[in-house]
Order: sequence, then structure tokens, then C-alpha cells
Amino acid sequence: MSDSSAGHDDAQELPAAALAAFREAVGEAHVVIDAGTRRRYETATFATSARVPAIVRPGSVAEVQQCLQVANAHGVPVYPVSTGLNTGYGSAVPARSGCVVLELRRLDRILDYDPGLGCVTIEPGVTQEQLFRFLQERDAPFWLDVTGAYPGHSLIGNIAERGFGHTTYSDHYAHLGAMEVVLPQGELVGTGFGQYRDAKATGYYRWGLGPHFDGLFTQSNLGIIVKATLWLMPRPAYTQFFAARVDRDEDLPLLIEALKPLRLDGTITSAMHIGNDYKVISAIQGYPWEAAGGETPLPRDVLAAKSKEWDCGPWNASGALYGTRAEVALARRKLKAALKGKVSRLQFLDERLLGLAKRFARPYSWLTGLNLNEMLKMVEPVFGMTRGVPSAGMLPSNYWRKPGPLPAVSPDLSPEADRCGVFWIAPVAPTSGAHAAAVWAIVRDTMLHRGFEPAVSITLLTERTLDCVVNISYDRDVPGEDERAMACHDALLERLCAEGYYPYRLGIQSSGKMPPREAGWERLMAGLRRELDPNGILAPGRYLD
Amino acid sequence: MSDSSAGHDDAQELPAAALAAFREAVGEAHVVIDAGTRRRYETATFATSARVPAIVRPGSVAEVQQCLQVANAHGVPVYPVSTGLNTGYGSAVPARSGCVVLELRRLDRILDYDPGLGCVTIEPGVTQEQLFRFLQERDAPFWLDVTGAYPGHSLIGNIAERGFGHTTYSDHYAHLGAMEVVLPQGELVGTGFGQYRDAKATGYYRWGLGPHFDGLFTQSNLGIIVKATLWLMPRPAYTQFFAARVDRDEDLPLLIEALKPLRLDGTITSAMHIGNDYKVISAIQGYPWEAAGGETPLPRDVLAAKSKEWDCGPWNASGALYGTRAEVALARRKLKAALKGKVSRLQFLDERLLGLAKRFARPYSWLTGLNLNEMLKMVEPVFGMTRGVPSAGMLPSNYWRKPGPLPAVSPDLSPEADRCGVFWIAPVAPTSGAHAAAVWAIVRDTMLHRGFEPAVSITLLTERTLDCVVNISYDRDVPGEDERAMACHDALLERLCAEGYYPYRLGIQSSGKMPPREAGWERLMAGLRRELDPNGILAPGRYLD
Repeated sequence: MSDSSAGHDDAQELPAAALAAFREAVGEAHVVIDAGTRRRYETATFATSARVPAIVRPGSVAEVQQCLQVANAHGVPVYPVSTGLNTGYGSAVPARSGCVVLELRRLDRILDYDPGLGCVTIEPGVTQEQLFRFLQERDAPFWLDVTGAYPGHSLIGNIAERGFGHTTYSDHYAHLGAMEVVLPQGELVGTGFGQYRDAKATGYYRWGLGPHFDGLFTQSNLGIIVKATLWLMPRPAYTQFFAARVDRDEDLPLLIEALKPLRLDGTITSAMHIGNDYKVISAIQGYPWEAAGGETPLPRDVLAAKSKEWDCGPWNASGALYGTRAEVALARRKLKAALKGKVSRLQFLDERLLGLAKRFARPYSWLTGLNLNEMLKMVEPVFGMTRGVPSAGMLPSNYWRKPGPLPAVSPDLSPEADRCGVFWIAPVAPTSGAHAAAVWAIVRDTMLHRGFEPAVSITLLTERTLDCVVNISYDRDVPGEDERAMACHDALLERLCAEGYYPYRLGIQSSGKMPPREAGWERLMAGLRRELDPNGILAPGRYLD
Repeated sequence: MSDSSAGHDDAQELPAAALAAFREAVGEAHVVIDAGTRRRYETATFATSARVPAIVRPGSVAEVQQCLQVANAHGVPVYPVSTGLNTGYGSAVPARSGCVVLELRRLDRILDYDPGLGCVTIEPGVTQEQLFRFLQERDAPFWLDVTGAYPGHSLIGNIAERGFGHTTYSDHYAHLGAMEVVLPQGELVGTGFGQYRDAKATGYYRWGLGPHFDGLFTQSNLGIIVKATLWLMPRPAYTQFFAARVDRDEDLPLLIEALKPLRLDGTITSAMHIGNDYKVISAIQGYPWEAAGGETPLPRDVLAAKSKEWDCGPWNASGALYGTRAEVALARRKLKAALKGKVSRLQFLDERLLGLAKRFARPYSWLTGLNLNEMLKMVEPVFGMTRGVPSAGMLPSNYWRKPGPLPAVSPDLSPEADRCGVFWIAPVAPTSGAHAAAVWAIVRDTMLHRGFEPAVSITLLTERTLDCVVNISYDRDVPGEDERAMACHDALLERLCAEGYYPYRLGIQSSGKMPPREAGWERLMAGLRRELDPNGILAPGRYLD
């Protein structure tokens, strides 16, 4: 790999014949080779070294196929991204140097929508915001599930990484009807019942007939998803948001154990999130440089003061209950009983109460204490996400360690361009208080020791597993921080894996640093790569070599 | 293929070296070559022609691996079955002649059980009955999901075929944590987080890291599942069984449309079954030869009389509501409102009421009319299945067209040995009244025209799809019926596929008769076969060539 500080050298330029062929495939306007743009696609929220010789933007599935044919014919690897907003995991930067970025944002059509059964068929350029508006315009009785990242990120891109959100349909890959995929050599394949062009159940019944294999094209470089049918959550009659907290760090296991049976038996169907104090504070404000006297990591007393100011505990759970009012009332009673004596506070919020809180901040507010308006700024997008409303509200939190006040909320913020430092690492464990405590101890000790705030949210991701989403934030403009943060990332990843807590997805910063997998698994994957991509032109190094 | 009436010829015997190698691998006692046993493994519930040179029964995963090495070394194809009770789809009969049956029933250990999160790890020989007893003995707070087939059938075998049952966890393949698979050349691979030997979340978090591919080993010949972690349904506080019916055949769409929103929004989480009159009657009694004057198919007037006698309508829905008593009461209210004015009867049953009905058949019974005790014989196992209780109660229905009274309920019944004729075909459609009616019209017209009773149950299999499970029953001892029934099967399959209603699984009778799939799909699968099974020794012709 080339040195990260080096400029663009000739060796990273596309051979003229390949460049001409890509232009032929997608049109000259959609092949970008200017240095500034290339640099942008080489920039993540951490140090990277991959060079991008060109960005190619096909406008149709046929053009995607042609691009792969060009790649094979000219031996030029391509790195597909949908909208490329994979912040904290590498953004649009290829896993290896020399890859042409194949950006799919021009494929942005909503191809089909079934208002009876809540299925929508989309292309990879379709964003959270776009589908949200589409459903709003139709007053659809269905919600999409959104993530807290960019409103403008690709839904298919997130499925491909098996991301998750906040509602009953939070596990995005689990709520998928069918895909169409372009294989590395350019062939188009439908998954599930897509094997038959005229099958009525394609997109409705996922497994199809014969081997079920759509997952081969998630977290992999075995194909490019160019179309997907997503399942949408039926809009419930009523939603009640809830928030609970414990006052002592050591009560985390208690909280997890209390919530576990409710998540397992379906009383709580939303992917509950349990954020720690660092996480909550960094979602509301920038680093309190003054109070901290310029020190990092955040001094304990400043953390305590900020927790008090923002009225958060060491662990703060939130989620939503869905159903008719009567159904939600029953679930609420169960939740209260389960948490009784275990949490220091349990609060509920619905749309009506939120409206009241906004109008009469003081006397009628459900939250007590200071800074209510500021807190509502955070609560409102989180509550919105439990109802499928995308929000840019979390974007400023990428600027935690940057000097000065946080930027205003805007979907156009670019933490990459603004030299924010952000890593995500997200280890998975069976849902249990003991596992949660073990993961948290590793994260806390490793990060504090290395000078970073252990901002964490623990998600009760499925009925049986939790995912501890760890955020390493820093300022790339501070000399040496890129290296220190990467060293912290590497140490944390190594310790988590050594204890058996492997991540559910990988950023490009993590791929090459994972422990070796079982030999049979490695050989099977190598065989599939060899069979499907004999020239190794599709995203080499992305999950698989 | 050899003629189905031919005896065992030398050509179908194993080469001596291969036989010796299999004996070496599993021990002489576990390689069976006597003609009687071989004949039994060549017998399904319809005409077959495949010859089985031997049955080999490995006793461990290592022995399964050795058997595949033998198969590769000697060029002898093997056909794996778990317990081989795939009645109506080919039982244990290989898809092609000359395959050694690799029977896995000796791998019958329950390897691990997590009573906190309801995960159980089993081998392919573990049966429904065995796991049921295991959970009963521990008073486990979890249920397994059972099918109405043999209590002694393999749980993994059913997952491999993506079968379904009756509870919230009815879609068996959807409730799977991880697998271990022996690939065709003998290599062992773990799916999901099984890629790391020490991952804590293996079996809990299904997708693992990197490509998700466990479905490659379902409905395929790409590997042999030797271990699986199943998720179990948390036992609800209360279960209420319900039964509804319509009185006119043409009201089927109305019934489907009324239930559809409740299935979609999770009010009904069980896989509801809607059986027609033929289905109900054939579940209770044998063919009324006398009333029908020896005629087939069943005359309309006899059907009407029997429907009256057994108190069933042309379409009879049943399912279960789960939760606390209060939750179930709410769901019950929703169900009543949804069905109001659309069904002629809606009845509820719980354990208490069932007990009462059994004790005081007449005055306190929930069912009115005749033959209450006989009806309870059917209701009890169906109600039991919604609570994870396996039953042999449906086995006698395989004897529908046999002369004389139905045999007594017993798990040892062998419809294959008793020359019962049974085919299953199970086309899938998006859940809608119109699709249900369209599928039903094809089934009814094709089958009646060809002289078979169209016994059907329509299952609301997932939130968005229905599966019309069609049963073709006949008596193999009636000359010409094997051919007529197969012709009916073929005609029905062809018409269903022509209309876009493809089946969710295939028996060996159907595989070679499916319309061609999309070229890209075929080439992808052929490539995987070539890569994983270059010698073509694993179950050739089973789903893939």
C-alpha cells in the first residue's frame, strides 16, 4: 500500500483502455477522475491509505453489469458503494488501494410498493429519507426502520452490512423479501423465488425453493445487490416511548436481566438501546474542553457534573411499545413490574405528551431538571426513530472532540471532510447481565487507559443477543491522534475477540486484524471467491480476500 | 434408471472395495445390504424406481466425514437422510438410483440446552418426541414447534426441508441459531459465528460475521447438516385455541382477507391453518366406501353428509393466541371484530375447557352436534400442536383411501410399508383472498377431474404468505392408481407453476418436473455444485443436479 501522506502517483491511475471502457459503459460524465473528488473518496473518519483511481457511477443494472465486464477484461478491481456513507467503518474508502469506486447512487428508483402487505422494492441509491417521504406522501399504513446515521444513507447499503435500527423491524437483513444481485463476472441473479421470472411470491416468501443464499451477498465481496424487496412494519395504532435508567454503573447487569425476558417473549419488540453517560452526553453537546481544563479523557468529576446537568444515569435504556392503546397499557404494566426496584426512574412518552412538553416546557414536562429544550432535541429524534422517522440529529455527535461548539444539525454534515475521528466496533454477546458487564469492562478499561471516552450503547438487538456499539471519537487534527486512536481500536478489537466477543460487522480498519477463522470456513469461502470471482476484481479484502 | 418392477440386480450392488471401506468407516453392523431392508428404503408412498445398494449408518460426525471420503474415493453417491420420514415427498428414497442411503439416526444427542435463552443444540437423529420429552422432564419454560407428521421425525431433517408447524416459531428454518455442516468432500464447517471456535454468540446471533450462508445447506445437496442450534419459543402464560369456519366455498377469500391484517401485525403469531371439508373429514375417518357406493372421487352428497356429521364447513380455520390472560383477551376481541359477519362460527378452547369437554361431553361441551368424542380425537392433537406437543394423531389420515377402518393411532404406522398412496404439493402465494381462490380453483378442478379428493389446508405461513398444502391420497394396491396419481401430481404441479404458484419444497417426485429456472440462477448453482462436490457424490438430483 502507498503511504497515506503521498499524493496521487501515476501507478494509481487507470490504464487508458480501462478508463475508456468505463466511459463507454456509463457515459463520460459518470466517470470521475479529478484529484479533489478522488481524495474525497479516499477519506474516512480515520487514517486510510487506499488510493482511488476513479469513481464510476452506473445509471442502470445493465451498466453495473458492463462495469464488471470492464473490470474483468482490464483486471481493474472495483469497490461498490451505494451512497458511501459508512461512517466509522470506512465511509466510501476501498479496503485495498487501486480499486475504482463503483458508486450506485444513480440507481435510486422505488420500483414497486404493495400497500396491502407492506413490501417495497428499491434500488441501492434509495435513501432512508427518500423512502420515508414516499410512505408519508401516501399516508402509508407502514413504517420503514431507520438507523441513527445519515437520513441520506442507502437502505440497501445498510442491509448489505446487516445494520439495525429501532423498531420491531430493526434487524434489517431479517426483513428482506428478495434481492437481485450482479455477480463478479457480470451475471444477474435473483434470490428466493427470483429463480422463476413469473413467481407470484417473489419478495413475499423469502426462502424460495432450493438453497437459500441471499446472505452470501451481505458482508462480502461475492456480488453487488442492485435491487431488494424490503418488508415494512405495519404502523401500530399507538406507540409509547419509554426511558429507564440505573444510578450505579454496577447495576447494568440488573437492568439487562430485567429486560431480557420481555425482549425474549416479545413484550418488547423494538431493538432497545441502553446508552451510557458518555454516549448520552456526547449526543447532546461537544467535549467540555473548558470544564475539563483541556484534558482528555473526560475527567470523572466533569462526567459527573455533566450527567447531573443532562439528567442521565450511568446507563439509560430506551425503547418503544407498540399496539393498540390497550395492548400498550398491558405491556407497560409488565415493563413496570419487571423494572420495579431495579431502576431509579422509568418514564413514558407519547406523541401527545411530547407535544405538551414542547409547548409547556416547565410545568407540564415529563422530564424534570435543567435544559429541557436541549434534552428534547435529543429525545425527539430518538422517539422519532422508534416510529421510523429518519433524523440527522445524531450527526453532530461525530464532532465530539472537535474544538468549539457542535455544528448545527444538518444532513449535509461531512465528518470525513471535517476531519472528525470516528471508529465503530460492535461486539455481539448472548443477552445476559454477565456478558454485558464483561464486554463493558473490556471497553471501559481499554479505552480509558488509552485516553478515549468509552461511549457505548448496548442494543438488545434480537430476542437473544445484545450488541455493544462502541464509539471511539477523536480529532484528526490533533497530531498523533490518528495513530493513538487506531492503536486503541486495534487493542480493543483484539481483547474483545480474545474473550469471544466478536463484532457483528467490520469496518475496513478491522478486516485485516481479525483472528484466523476455522480452516474449513476459510477454505469454503476461498472456494466461493475462486468460483465467483476468478479474477479477484470485486472489492478485494472486503470481508473476504 | 432401472424399471421399478425389477428385482435387485448386480449392477446396483456396491463394488466390494467401496463396501469394505464403508464397513471400515462405520463398523460392519452399521452397513446394511440385505434385500429386505434395501427394498424398504426404496419404498415411498408412490411409485419410485431408485435402487439402494446399501444403507450406511454413521455414529459420529467423524464417521459422516469418513463416509464422504469413501464416497469420493470410490465414486459412490450417497443420499443423506436423518430419520427418513419424509412421507409424501419421497420418504428415504434417493432422488437417483444407485445412491447409498446415509442414515443419521444414530447421531441422536441433545448436545446443549440453554434454559435462560431457549437455545438447544442437537444432532440430526434427534426427534420431535425426544426433544419434547427432554423439555417436559425439565419443566422447561420453552416449547419446541412441532409438525403434524411423525413424532419420531428428525427436527434437523425438517429444518433442512424448511418445514413448518403451528406456533409462533412455526417457520423452522427462521428459528435457527447455527449449524455445523459436513461438505461433500468431508470438510466440517460451522455457520454464523461458528467460524470462530470460541465465539460466545454462536447459536444466539445467527448471521455471524461475513457472508451468511447456512441456507445453502437447506433444500440442497451442498452439505450434510450434522448439528444445529434451534431457538425455542418462550412458553406463554396462557394459550387459547380458536376455530372459525365459513359455510360457503366462495367465502374463502373473505376469510383470508379478514385474517390477513391480524397475521401481518402480529395479533396472530401462530401459523394459522385453514382446512377444507375434504381435509377435515380425511383427518377423522377413512373413505366412506359404503356411502359412496364404492365410487371415487367422493360424491358431492356424501361430502355434504359427512360435513354435517363432523360439523365442518367448506373452510375451517384454526390457530392459537398466546400471552397473558389479559393479552389473549385483547387479541380475542380483535379476532372477533375482524371475523364478525364473515364467519358462521368462531369458537375458543383452552386447556380448562378441553378438560371439561372430555369429562362432560354433552352438557358442557364447546362443540355441539354429534360424535363429540371422535371430534375431540382430532381437536386435541391439533390444539396440542399449537402448544408444541407432538402427536401421531394425523398419521392414520394417510390411509384415507385404503379399504376398511382407519388403523389405530400409533407412531409405528408405516404408510410406505402399508402401500398407502400419498403425495404432497405445497404452492406458495402472497397472502390474499384472490390468490387463495386462484390456487384453490386450480387444485380443485385438476384433482376432481382426475378422480382424487382435493384435500387442502391453507396455512398463513408467514406474515405475508400463504402456503396451500395439497394432499393427493390413494391406494397403491388398486391397479393403475400409482400411474393415475402421478399423472394428477404432474398435471397439478405444471398448472400451479404455469400460474406462478411455485411450491416451497419438492419431493423427489417433483424435482425433475419443474420449469427451467433463470439462467443466471442455474449457472450459479451449477458453479457451487462444481466447487463443493466435484465428483457429484452428494445426493445427485436432490434439488440440484
